[in-house]
Amino acid sequence: MTTIKDIAKEVGVSVATVSRALNDSGYASSGVKKKVLDAARKLNYVPNEVARSLYNNKSRVIGVLVPDISNPYFPRMIRGIEDAANENNYRILLGNTDQNIDKEKKYLEIFHQNNCAGIITATWTVEKSIQNLKVPVVMIDRVNDKYVSVEADNFKGGRIQADHLIEQGAKHILIIAGPEKYSSFRNRTIGASERLNDLKINCEVKDSISVRTLMDKSDVKFFRGFDGIICPNDMYAYEVLSFLNENNINIPSEIKIIGFDDLEFSKWVSPELTTVRQPIYEMGKEAFALLIQEDEKNKRNILDVELIQRKST
Amino acid sequence: MTTIKDIAKEVGVSVATVSRALNDSGYASSGVKKKVLDAARKLNYVPNEVARSLYNNKSRVIGVLVPDISNPYFPRMIRGIEDAANENNYRILLGNTDQNIDKEKKYLEIFHQNNCAGIITATWTVEKSIQNLKVPVVMIDRVNDKYVSVEADNFKGGRIQADHLIEQGAKHILIIAGPEKYSSFRNRTIGASERLNDLKINCEVKDSISVRTLMDKSDVKFFRGFDGIICPNDMYAYEVLSFLNENNINIPSEIKIIGFDDLEFSKWVSPELTTVRQPIYEMGKEAFALLIQEDEKNKRNILDVELIQRKST
Repeated sequence: MTTIKDIAKEVGVSVATVSRALNDSGYASSGVKKKVLDAARKLNYVPNEVARSLYNNKSRVIGVLVPDISNPYFPRMIRGIEDAANENNYRILLGNTDQNIDKEKKYLEIFHQNNCAGIITATWTVEKSIQNLKVPVVMIDRVNDKYVSVEADNFKGGRIQADHLIEQGAKHILIIAGPEKYSSFRNRTIGASERLNDLKINCEVKDSISVRTLMDKSDVKFFRGFDGIICPNDMYAYEVLSFLNENNINIPSEIKIIGFDDLEFSKWVSPELTTVRQPIYEMGKEAFALLIQEDEKNKRNILDVELIQRKST
Repeated sequence: MTTIKDIAKEVGVSVATVSRALNDSGYASSGVKKKVLDAARKLNYVPNEVARSLYNNKSRVIGVLVPDISNPYFPRMIRGIEDAANENNYRILLGNTDQNIDKEKKYLEIFHQNNCAGIITATWTVEKSIQNLKVPVVMIDRVNDKYVSVEADNFKGGRIQADHLIEQGAKHILIIAGPEKYSSFRNRTIGASERLNDLKINCEVKDSISVRTLMDKSDVKFFRGFDGIICPNDMYAYEVLSFLNENNINIPSEIKIIGFDDLEFSKWVSPELTTVRQPIYEMGKEAFALLIQEDEKNKRNILDVELIQRKST
């Protein structure tokens, strides 16, 4: 690898002069500067980011933590982060935590060891570790009041799910709640159940694990008690659709189903899934923008959601 | 950030001694070593990977290039690479190229600037750039004879697609071919069409773009000429299924459809998709293993595929 020493030797000036010429800092005559740049090109010199990072004690790398990139919710988010990072000349170091505390701690240490300039996380088991970090942190999707964050309007999304099923004539609604520890799932359930209670519509909230158990036991009778199902996300809705299809329950005439996310696949399941779209890609871009902004005025950024009506309702 | 200078000061020994004690290289008495380690713990010392990378001129970071992480084929591959990297104390810098030459070149330069120890790529537009790299490169899925690579047995997979449709009674088969420039798609088409020709089964090969055009024009008549369709991958099969469902063509009784990949969603489309499973996650792990192995004996690693029969055939 060509270093600035090689360039200095080639041109016959000092290393300090080469450095000034390349970084356009301090004095170097235009004649010398041209010689240095010509030599840099000739010798195929590439500025070493690692050396620069050591010098500045900050790299142009940010760490990104997700629970699991194989969950199709996250790739578009990561893509949004990466596109925004790329536009600003940053790159991303990626870590999957599987919501495992040890993996999360290890990655936070790795990001530190690599002088990461900041961290975007969609998972946070070890809040204390985050508090000790000396770089900016932005939470995405699974957020917490104490940190800068970006999320979809999950509360409004839950209300949209409820309103839409009511409009389509549902009178006995099952709300399947995602894991309560995550703000995103919690707010969806609150939004939907408050709305149904306000309007005095019959509804039952059940957590996703117990509903999955009922599907395993093929307990169709339980589902027949409802004419509308609110799912915590699209992936979950696919499982419910598949279970009801297998048991010859007609969707939407017998039971209407609505999801949350609007993953690409929602238009390919049968019947096509009605859902609430959250702007996953844009959330990724926004998280990066928040990470590099200087002032932290806008601590909690909530992006809008919308109904995407298809054939399952 | 605590440096080894701080530790040296705390313990009252030289920086060189601290370095020897921490790296367990060269002589340092066990008493001194203990003092150094205690001080390191007390001062919350974290070895700086950036400094180490600059010193070794090689980091424990590898670059990973994919066309687009939003394509659900790639996340599991990346997950395989990352899990293997993690086990070996490496991390990954991720780049999406969108099959754009400029983006690809830029990322290769970035990987170089970050002293990446190697590169795994599922996309290669700029072969010349790869030739100039001084670090090991492993190609994955979209491969090339000249490089170390890992791929599924696409040729065998194409044969399995053909054999299965014949066994299910298909007599007029449409093969939809993916982009010819990629080895993976090319070999699937060759595998399927050679088999059908050998067995003198009526078949027609059409490229994916022209088939998509026919679907846009709702040219159902064209599809009615076949009783079996071989798709280049699962994503494409979902589109075909959805088009035929909309046009009230019964699958599998009128037309049988088989995909390639076995993405998670294939069990949720209706009817559930029969497909050829390739071990995407394992390919990622294998690519990492090839990248860090010293000898390059095993230049081209081909992983086995298998039929996953569901309800679309």
